[in-house]
Amino acid sequence: MPLKTNDPTKKTWLQVPANSDFPIQNIPFGVFLTRDDIITIGTRIGDYAIDLGALHQLGYFKGIPLTDDIFLQDTLNDFISDGKKTWRLVRNRISEIFDITNKSLQNNDDHKNIVLFTLDEIEMQLPVQIGDYTDFYSSKEHATNVGKMFRDPENALLPNWLHIPVGYHGRSSSIVPSGTAIRRPMGQTLPDGADLPVFGPSKLVDFELEMAFITTDANVLGEPIPVEDAENYIFGMVLFNDWSARDIQKWEYAPLGPFLAKNFASSISPWIVTLDALEPFRVPSPEQNPTPLPYLRHTGKRGFDISLEVSITPENGSKTVITRSNFKYMYWSMAQQLAHHTVNGCKVNSGDMMGSGTVSGPSPENYGSMLELTWRGENPLKLKDGSTRKFIEDNDTVTMIGYCEKANVRIGFGEVSTKLLPVFQPKQK
Amino acid sequence: MPLKTNDPTKKTWLQVPANSDFPIQNIPFGVFLTRDDIITIGTRIGDYAIDLGALHQLGYFKGIPLTDDIFLQDTLNDFISDGKKTWRLVRNRISEIFDITNKSLQNNDDHKNIVLFTLDEIEMQLPVQIGDYTDFYSSKEHATNVGKMFRDPENALLPNWLHIPVGYHGRSSSIVPSGTAIRRPMGQTLPDGADLPVFGPSKLVDFELEMAFITTDANVLGEPIPVEDAENYIFGMVLFNDWSARDIQKWEYAPLGPFLAKNFASSISPWIVTLDALEPFRVPSPEQNPTPLPYLRHTGKRGFDISLEVSITPENGSKTVITRSNFKYMYWSMAQQLAHHTVNGCKVNSGDMMGSGTVSGPSPENYGSMLELTWRGENPLKLKDGSTRKFIEDNDTVTMIGYCEKANVRIGFGEVSTKLLPVFQPKQK
Repeated sequence: MPLKTNDPTKKTWLQVPANSDFPIQNIPFGVFLTRDDIITIGTRIGDYAIDLGALHQLGYFKGIPLTDDIFLQDTLNDFISDGKKTWRLVRNRISEIFDITNKSLQNNDDHKNIVLFTLDEIEMQLPVQIGDYTDFYSSKEHATNVGKMFRDPENALLPNWLHIPVGYHGRSSSIVPSGTAIRRPMGQTLPDGADLPVFGPSKLVDFELEMAFITTDANVLGEPIPVEDAENYIFGMVLFNDWSARDIQKWEYAPLGPFLAKNFASSISPWIVTLDALEPFRVPSPEQNPTPLPYLRHTGKRGFDISLEVSITPENGSKTVITRSNFKYMYWSMAQQLAHHTVNGCKVNSGDMMGSGTVSGPSPENYGSMLELTWRGENPLKLKDGSTRKFIEDNDTVTMIGYCEKANVRIGFGEVSTKLLPVFQPKQK
Repeated sequence: MPLKTNDPTKKTWLQVPANSDFPIQNIPFGVFLTRDDIITIGTRIGDYAIDLGALHQLGYFKGIPLTDDIFLQDTLNDFISDGKKTWRLVRNRISEIFDITNKSLQNNDDHKNIVLFTLDEIEMQLPVQIGDYTDFYSSKEHATNVGKMFRDPENALLPNWLHIPVGYHGRSSSIVPSGTAIRRPMGQTLPDGADLPVFGPSKLVDFELEMAFITTDANVLGEPIPVEDAENYIFGMVLFNDWSARDIQKWEYAPLGPFLAKNFASSISPWIVTLDALEPFRVPSPEQNPTPLPYLRHTGKRGFDISLEVSITPENGSKTVITRSNFKYMYWSMAQQLAHHTVNGCKVNSGDMMGSGTVSGPSPENYGSMLELTWRGENPLKLKDGSTRKFIEDNDTVTMIGYCEKANVRIGFGEVSTKLLPVFQPKQK
């Protein structure tokens, strides 16, 4: 049965600009600091941020089993722990309150003054306290490109890749929301032809175009989540820039995987778009051949048609779109990733985040990293201001956007936009 | 200047059994559930657990800047955030209160009834909420043994190993305290000679004898911690069993490192022994040749002489000690690990945990895993009950202990003891 929050004919009494990522069918969740210096949980419709803590205090969620302070928190973890049934009840109610036919809040200026904020009055925060963060490697095109460049062009995919949604653990503490500038990392690298490593700024800082999903409490330690149940434990998705220092990675990664090449920073979009809002945009995933082992087999459409786009904006320059990709290219589904992650009994908590891996498509113009777009720097990209890029330069801003579109409804993620600052300079003593 | 809490002549009015790990010179920190079903932060002297929350409420920490509820919490994270100066003030005060010459608590039976618990009245919990967990690979002997077995015996160490304290990210959510039984994991493996993977219980479950350190908030994102400052951000250490499924690891680990082979469970001892308590047991680390890059160079004694021992106890069987090692064998110091981890600006928070990597010594009887002790199963170990082990079998209990000894003072870690249960069996529907 289709969810009523997804009804494409539904309209809201709030003004929603044409092509907004946030029509009344979206109703994402985020955390923001208000003009009164209060942190609250909220949603967004058009260019309004809506304070759910205040709405709850004013009685608009009456009848839904919620603790009094569930939205007066600085993370969504507890709300996410309440589970899918509660998420739906809350989104249904928000959808009703802002429906064009509903006058309760619409005609109450005092209440509107309390709950509605314009975007310049708020500052978006990290939406969850991320307990553990895992990054997958689930685009066949990306894995093939990397294999061609660094291993054997004839056997680009490693033997395990078609059997396992390959993944590894990342660092939660370095994940920041869109708008937080990051620094070029220092590190050890081995110059071409050298015998000994050197220390200095990474010369090959790259983005990785990814999406990530946020989980709820899914299991107890020792018990797996069956693949057909897995989506019930996925709260929603964000855009994800998995910053990477290619030269540091090359020297450090054998035999235990990437470490300092990744954990200097990772950036996410601040509004979590629920899996429910994405429901109308399901598509079949790419065919899997060989058929995966039984614990990874599922039925139905497990892909999502989400258009993705990355641009670079140099300091004082204009934006150049450098790639367009789509989440539907992912070979392994989110359900398969979560089932695989827990098949050994690994515990998954509310607020955990799992990245897709770089979302590269079939053509060079769909590649999800500078590494692939410039083929290791061999073919630099030309930007609108005439400058060229092999990798990301100091003071460049990398911006990713993502959205679904169908039946005149656009469900978008906003953006994750991050400026790369030069290396940290310690103060002189 | 030596710390007065380390004075080897100091005696307490509490009874301390001979050879106890917990004389008055230790004063570790932990979290426990009391007979009244209250979770509190505590310390341990001899076989008494001491409720620091109650001691604080009774006024025994007067004059030390602590919030009222600092010990009435279910993790040590906030206390650890208070920093090294506060840790020392609190340990000094505990040392005074329990000094044999101090009568304040000694002569107050009402207060003693409130703050003292025997060990059978409490249940130890995880001492910290671990935000991020990193595992290093810092024993040269272990890395060499693994290299000999799986790569080239003539070039066992990879080229980066002598330049980098190699590490990778692990999973915080699966870390459990001593006494929590774990399950044999299910997973994908590639049988010898096969082309296609199979799914089933891991056949090669192993322990890894490690120690781990717990950090306080150390930096802001983007700023490194200099190696000479790094120890100021280490609160203390625990024993650590980094459970590993060797067959799962072999199939999954290329190219991004171990994942499901590790994150089914990791076990720690519940009392955090402070770096201050370990101060008298410093020893020089092994000589480093080649000299590391400047950001990893430090002076002074950075190793710690900590004797380690692992035993296996089969169900209904007796304990067999299977290896004896020492933390002093570690090639890379904790200070070097933390400096390396943050040299790219990676943020380190209070309660983060960093494992040493398997602590193997120079002789086969010092090896820190079954993989090395039995050389991939080629030379099974004989247990006291006559049975043999290539790896760990269902219902075996693996117990690790660790202690320092000098001038008749023994500072120990207690134990991390974990039973391996058979694979999880889903309920029949």
